[in-house]
Amino acid sequence: MQSGTKRGYQTQDRTAIALPEAQRALLRHVRPIDKAKVRLEQAFGYRLAAAAYASEPIPHFRRSGMDGYAVRTEDLAELPVTLEVTQRIACGTPPAGALGAGTAARIMTGGMVPDGADAVIMQEMAEETADGQRCYVRFTKAVPSGTNITPVGLEAGRGEKLLDAGERIGPAQAALLAAIGCDEPSVYRKPIVAIICTGDELLAIHQRLQPGKIRNSNLYMLASQIREYGGEPQLIGSIPDEPQEARRMLYGIMEGEADLVLTTGGVSVGDFDVVAAILADWDGDTLFNKITMRPGSPTSAGVRGGKLLIGLSGNPAACLAGCELLVRPVLRQMQGERAITADEHGQQAILAEGYGKVNAYTRYIRGIRYTDGATVYVRQAGADRSSAIVSLKEANCLIVIPPTKTGVLAGELVTIIPL
Amino acid sequence: MQSGTKRGYQTQDRTAIALPEAQRALLRHVRPIDKAKVRLEQAFGYRLAAAAYASEPIPHFRRSGMDGYAVRTEDLAELPVTLEVTQRIACGTPPAGALGAGTAARIMTGGMVPDGADAVIMQEMAEETADGQRCYVRFTKAVPSGTNITPVGLEAGRGEKLLDAGERIGPAQAALLAAIGCDEPSVYRKPIVAIICTGDELLAIHQRLQPGKIRNSNLYMLASQIREYGGEPQLIGSIPDEPQEARRMLYGIMEGEADLVLTTGGVSVGDFDVVAAILADWDGDTLFNKITMRPGSPTSAGVRGGKLLIGLSGNPAACLAGCELLVRPVLRQMQGERAITADEHGQQAILAEGYGKVNAYTRYIRGIRYTDGATVYVRQAGADRSSAIVSLKEANCLIVIPPTKTGVLAGELVTIIPL
Repeated sequence: MQSGTKRGYQTQDRTAIALPEAQRALLRHVRPIDKAKVRLEQAFGYRLAAAAYASEPIPHFRRSGMDGYAVRTEDLAELPVTLEVTQRIACGTPPAGALGAGTAARIMTGGMVPDGADAVIMQEMAEETADGQRCYVRFTKAVPSGTNITPVGLEAGRGEKLLDAGERIGPAQAALLAAIGCDEPSVYRKPIVAIICTGDELLAIHQRLQPGKIRNSNLYMLASQIREYGGEPQLIGSIPDEPQEARRMLYGIMEGEADLVLTTGGVSVGDFDVVAAILADWDGDTLFNKITMRPGSPTSAGVRGGKLLIGLSGNPAACLAGCELLVRPVLRQMQGERAITADEHGQQAILAEGYGKVNAYTRYIRGIRYTDGATVYVRQAGADRSSAIVSLKEANCLIVIPPTKTGVLAGELVTIIPL
Repeated sequence: MQSGTKRGYQTQDRTAIALPEAQRALLRHVRPIDKAKVRLEQAFGYRLAAAAYASEPIPHFRRSGMDGYAVRTEDLAELPVTLEVTQRIACGTPPAGALGAGTAARIMTGGMVPDGADAVIMQEMAEETADGQRCYVRFTKAVPSGTNITPVGLEAGRGEKLLDAGERIGPAQAALLAAIGCDEPSVYRKPIVAIICTGDELLAIHQRLQPGKIRNSNLYMLASQIREYGGEPQLIGSIPDEPQEARRMLYGIMEGEADLVLTTGGVSVGDFDVVAAILADWDGDTLFNKITMRPGSPTSAGVRGGKLLIGLSGNPAACLAGCELLVRPVLRQMQGERAITADEHGQQAILAEGYGKVNAYTRYIRGIRYTDGATVYVRQAGADRSSAIVSLKEANCLIVIPPTKTGVLAGELVTIIPL
């Protein structure tokens, strides 16, 4: 049989770098994404493009914390005491005037405490009586000045920073933005991430299985991950394993609207590893083509025309982990939040079952994090095969197994990366 | 001053029930939501309406786990040995035929192992040479039968259940659905949740602040929470504090397309608590109007025409917690997953700072969960005021403080509910 003509991308220089180095190499090329205005009711999940400040103190008026009676505490020096109720203050209606000596104001939770009053006594501690046109309230216990009144600016002074740029808009952020009247916050638009899969073995999902072929599952897995990270996936589909045609298509996609381009597969040392072939001979800069990690050591990246290309492994578990470890930080930083690299402190857990495999590279294996009492444990999820797909869903974290000649024993502390 | 005519919803019968009881009372009225078909690329975050099964074994052919050479291990009995390479098997191309004795096949990761071969030897352990038209590979080490071959059905047999109904479609689920060719899964449509706020103090977010009035922040907070739970918020806005008009409007909304109706505010014992007034005198069934919890004890619920109404507290922190504790389980069960009630085992953490307040009711206070090593700690987030809004974003959990006369000491184990 004739020797293959395409053999030999494994001969190219592949010097492995550590994961944090690879992450930093990517982050150096992250360009800030455009800003956009989004109506607050549609802003869930976006990240703020500008910090938010209190335009007025919060609260901006002295607020009652109870349904009850606003009083001047000096009137409660001698007990029991009966005061005339001279006004009723509903929420949203300012007091009719200041509270005079010897009088009380009926007030609701959230109501504006009248000038002169320095405490609100809860209604359960008061007894209201009527006498013809007049209304009275009787107290048998005193309260300290300030009771049940939230002073102006207790939560925030005027001009105080409430939210940072880069912060993700969740329920509490939405509430604060509404409170300060920000009905159309400035946010980072969702980064568009083109996803390209390589491999002539890939079928579209509607196609029937054929011997040796599998349906393209990485495309949909990555699309979901991108959505989780706040991005907008652009599902390109497959490009052929033939390098000339593949390069032409890849260049076209990289020159398109996507902010980041991902490929899966074709990064290894096989005869048909097209992404490796392209990166070995293209007009862009190759940032790295090997990482000291398993799975996914051939994960590669480059930059061309200022745009990043990340070449993930085609094995589902390696692809999932690679996306988590390399794509998530990039998307995070594109949306204004500083990304955390793998050498910054992570979460920890106790390894519930020993891990015997030895390796010169750091392993990022899929794990199941669980707690017993207040202690966090982790155990391996599913089979330790990067080709596994059925067991992927069991994992809720990656377990970091550092290079070791002896494995890691049950009971040892390990770092975990939540998925 | 004349005695208020609307005084006295506090006189209605309000017997407090425990939170798990309240949750179960709601769940008994949950009706299954309609099913819908969604294209897989749009299915992220939906929940499956039907279990998913393997239509074919996974994998459906004997798959190589390495770039290397498929061999018959019996040919490696005497070493070193040189075998002729009689075929090259790329991914996606079935072998040209069975592997004959004394021959090897070049094969790529993910390629289909030819009949006859019983192991794949990684290329790093092989040396390929060419001799004219013919190609040979030399091995110096044997491997056990089965090496680097994933057998048919290793991950799942034909017909095996892969995903349960009710399961949320994330990256791993999307990958599996793609693998089995499910390009349009049957999902539960997103439940529509109408959000109505009460309180004449509420301004729309674009309005200028006025004395005694605040902008409607609960509307946007709840909308974000509903999206987090997989629902579709319908932002109705405010209804007036006048009971007749409010009832008419509420009935109209409950008869509309929403699957669940939420109100905020107006559930307490104040003079203008309109939701309490409606529930005290309506043609629906009131499920509860008081819960033995703080904040949010006046949280109420009813059912009318088979549709649930949940009346949350108007205080932001109480509203947030009430939504988490009462609305999330309802939405979860509407989307086919069994809801977990508060008396089922939850997560635990060590209370980092003692909590001194005593109360006859269970407190659900906002907390910050953090870990030190593999131990989970929790401390209180922000001010313990249900009216707080600025500090809401600090919380990542609720801390459950059971009724106690002595408070809870630092170092004690408490239950937490992640937000």
